[in-house]
Amino acid sequence: MSASRGKQHSSVKRHQQAAVKRHQQAAVTLDLHAVILAGGTGTRFWPLSRRLAPKQLIALLSDRTMLQETVLRIAPAVPAERRWVVTGGDLADEVGRQLRAVDANATVIVEPAGRNTAPAIAVAAHRVIERDPDAVMAVLPADHVIAKSDAFLRCLARAEEVAREGFLVTIGLVPRRAETGYGYIQRGEPLRVGSPASGAKPDADASSVTLDSCFAFSVARFVEKPDRAAAERYVAAGDYFWNGGMFIWRAAAILDELRAHAPAVAEAAERIAEAMKAGADRNRIADLYRTIEAVSIDYAVMERTRRAAVIPAELGWSDVGSWAALDDVAEKDERGNVISGRVLDFGSERSILYAQDRLVATIGLKDVIVVDTPDATLVCDKDRAQDVRRVVETLEAQHAQEHVTHKTVQRPWGAYTVLEEGEGYKIKRIVINPSSRLSLQMHRQRSEHWVVVAGTARVTCGDRVYDVKTNESTYIPPQTRHRLENPDPAIPLQIIEVQNGPYLGEDDIVRFDDDFGRA
Amino acid sequence: MSASRGKQHSSVKRHQQAAVKRHQQAAVTLDLHAVILAGGTGTRFWPLSRRLAPKQLIALLSDRTMLQETVLRIAPAVPAERRWVVTGGDLADEVGRQLRAVDANATVIVEPAGRNTAPAIAVAAHRVIERDPDAVMAVLPADHVIAKSDAFLRCLARAEEVAREGFLVTIGLVPRRAETGYGYIQRGEPLRVGSPASGAKPDADASSVTLDSCFAFSVARFVEKPDRAAAERYVAAGDYFWNGGMFIWRAAAILDELRAHAPAVAEAAERIAEAMKAGADRNRIADLYRTIEAVSIDYAVMERTRRAAVIPAELGWSDVGSWAALDDVAEKDERGNVISGRVLDFGSERSILYAQDRLVATIGLKDVIVVDTPDATLVCDKDRAQDVRRVVETLEAQHAQEHVTHKTVQRPWGAYTVLEEGEGYKIKRIVINPSSRLSLQMHRQRSEHWVVVAGTARVTCGDRVYDVKTNESTYIPPQTRHRLENPDPAIPLQIIEVQNGPYLGEDDIVRFDDDFGRA
Repeated sequence: MSASRGKQHSSVKRHQQAAVKRHQQAAVTLDLHAVILAGGTGTRFWPLSRRLAPKQLIALLSDRTMLQETVLRIAPAVPAERRWVVTGGDLADEVGRQLRAVDANATVIVEPAGRNTAPAIAVAAHRVIERDPDAVMAVLPADHVIAKSDAFLRCLARAEEVAREGFLVTIGLVPRRAETGYGYIQRGEPLRVGSPASGAKPDADASSVTLDSCFAFSVARFVEKPDRAAAERYVAAGDYFWNGGMFIWRAAAILDELRAHAPAVAEAAERIAEAMKAGADRNRIADLYRTIEAVSIDYAVMERTRRAAVIPAELGWSDVGSWAALDDVAEKDERGNVISGRVLDFGSERSILYAQDRLVATIGLKDVIVVDTPDATLVCDKDRAQDVRRVVETLEAQHAQEHVTHKTVQRPWGAYTVLEEGEGYKIKRIVINPSSRLSLQMHRQRSEHWVVVAGTARVTCGDRVYDVKTNESTYIPPQTRHRLENPDPAIPLQIIEVQNGPYLGEDDIVRFDDDFGRA
Repeated sequence: MSASRGKQHSSVKRHQQAAVKRHQQAAVTLDLHAVILAGGTGTRFWPLSRRLAPKQLIALLSDRTMLQETVLRIAPAVPAERRWVVTGGDLADEVGRQLRAVDANATVIVEPAGRNTAPAIAVAAHRVIERDPDAVMAVLPADHVIAKSDAFLRCLARAEEVAREGFLVTIGLVPRRAETGYGYIQRGEPLRVGSPASGAKPDADASSVTLDSCFAFSVARFVEKPDRAAAERYVAAGDYFWNGGMFIWRAAAILDELRAHAPAVAEAAERIAEAMKAGADRNRIADLYRTIEAVSIDYAVMERTRRAAVIPAELGWSDVGSWAALDDVAEKDERGNVISGRVLDFGSERSILYAQDRLVATIGLKDVIVVDTPDATLVCDKDRAQDVRRVVETLEAQHAQEHVTHKTVQRPWGAYTVLEEGEGYKIKRIVINPSSRLSLQMHRQRSEHWVVVAGTARVTCGDRVYDVKTNESTYIPPQTRHRLENPDPAIPLQIIEVQNGPYLGEDDIVRFDDDFGRA
């Protein structure tokens, strides 16, 4: 029996510790802006991912989320003032929370609506140029695994050099197999720019690309996801590389190319950047986003430009496109299982077993994915991992909740968990961060009983302001202005809220004042 | 996709409706006492079964528990005053609750400790004889499936006739396959007693036994669970039948035989029955149980007596020995799946998929068992269903809780569910049945906040007695006598209890007065 207790991702712990070590050791310094794209809305990691907790914001391989890993990967080489994260409006609070949690600050650019990568990159390029007209920027997806952090940073340093010469540089990952789920980049002629590491030969084919060669080539062509036969030809040919969606270029250069190849997108992005600079309100910016075409940077620029370059590299990269892809990147036990959380396993093989708060017992499974969360469990044949999106589509059609949020919902002031909902009542556990408070608010339909179970609450109820200590309770009648605050600078406040009333939806709320601009 | 919503056991609904119909139609009247053995403590249906919710007390195939199905099966033919249920002390409350819930009363005999079937049957025989010295009694396990209720009652009627002639009658189930998990009974010569149904031939072999023949034979021998080869020989021979643990005999006859073949057990059982008759307290009876040998009636009597008889029958019987055995008895969808609860399935085959409160999504499984409960999930290859007990053994060794009780714990006055437990607090939803109340009690360590979410609570707190209505709350300090009562004769009372204190174990309770004898 292989038993794994507690909430720790125990089987992937070594992976994580190694990653931390790498972060600390990195000695490369990069003179570039890192723009992390964190706006994705994948469905393939349900039930761990939700609409409001997409893949980049969940912890798949360590106790850190993919976004946190991505930021920490570049943090030793790029200071906070040159880090940017682009994300959607409904994810921005959580992105900020996750960055603070690992002490890795960045400027967050909020997109009111996701419009694919070209608009996100264009707006970010304008913002970067505001700070430094000559800046080089690296565009990095927030939800990929890169096992070899040092090689990655060295690769970025080389790419920065090539980008300064005016090239639009991509990183081409050395293919490990004839994968049909990725796009490919065929390299062209070697570029005689910058200073490739000694020993690298300009005529090297993919098989001789080593970790440190970082040699740049022109791009012969970009290829969309191929069929099996084509993928096998590409891998055999040796001059094709996986397209990992990582780009390095001068911010001014990508805007020039965008103006040349996608002028409408370029213009719209410029208007948006100007509005942001002028401090326009969110409605105005949302209106502007509605006018911009949703298009990928690959389609808008890379497949058309003559300035594309590719640096082949072997970085232990994976886009972790589905639960089955964890096979590639997570540490396994002696029978090939990836196990996380409180799992009691008896003799399973090649399976992916994720538990969270509850006990999961597995017996004799072969190539099965089990993912347990507080409100939903997935059990899936590993070969069918792509069909997880069908579950999400079905839940959407049913107007269900299990694909939207987790039972625990993060808020800028803390978090709440719905413990139970019944006829006429709802019970929440609410955690308020130190020195934080909810909005001054009112509910039309429901009353609330609050029992403090840890810390001290400062309560506003009507005209009164009073403190409620641990093991004390208070009552908020309907249609009464109230506010819940944690005045302590260090200790989280925890309360149990019992709501009563004929209607208990989250939208029965009138906000009068809010620290987070929601009033 | 095959979707099944809500808590209904939808795929087994027709099975249940058919069963109800059968119960209503039965026209046989039996002049016997039915003694239902409901003391089992199986582990093979974990996580649906727990130590305090063993297989006979859970709903596997319908909305009714196996015990309820067993009682309702004989209820049309045996009036309440001739029904007995033997069970363990820690199950007695729940047995009573389940009997009341289906309006099928019976006298419950409580065993302070399980001592296998011989002591249970002997004590029951004494109790039956107290009421009627000439009584015939049928001994019936509480956790078996019998699909053909009418045939079963007709078979019992015939067995009663043979038992009145002095025989110890067993029912031999016509084997459907070379099962190695059951014991077998080899029939001997036909018995020329009573009045077998017309058309039955005394020299009939097993293959000619029809539903209605109910012909009795002497027993050539009882055989323990055989190996595969022996089981195949038995089935081919035609004169072997499955031993289903059902017995019919004169109560006086089984006691005579017990005195002859197991005198120590017989004597100890007689002392216990006398003590019960004399109204001895539970400690005295527990002491007496400690002296009695734990032995099966098969070993103590049936394998030794010369008065054994067997009536072969085809009753759609199964002992449902494991999750995999549901294949035999539950209704399946077009791909061979048994599905219950809110399951979203995409293309699974021959799988057993049980959801309770939460969503379970399954994709492409083959021969897999998935059982989800509020605190634990099992995912098991169907061929490994017997290994579920290893999970329970491991949980026992870990002093875990998930094999002992469910999150919802039944009490004689209602039920409670632990919604969450954290550092220094515990939250329960408590339901108090109409006109019921908890004991007058006190906790040394913890205080309790009660918020009424449905109904009206009558609260005793110290010297005060007051009513708390829906949406009102009250506070019970530590070391204060208190009582919670539902005075309404019809509406269940529902409260949310938030406990606070340094120690929150269920054993921090002092009972001063109790309607259920627990003070």
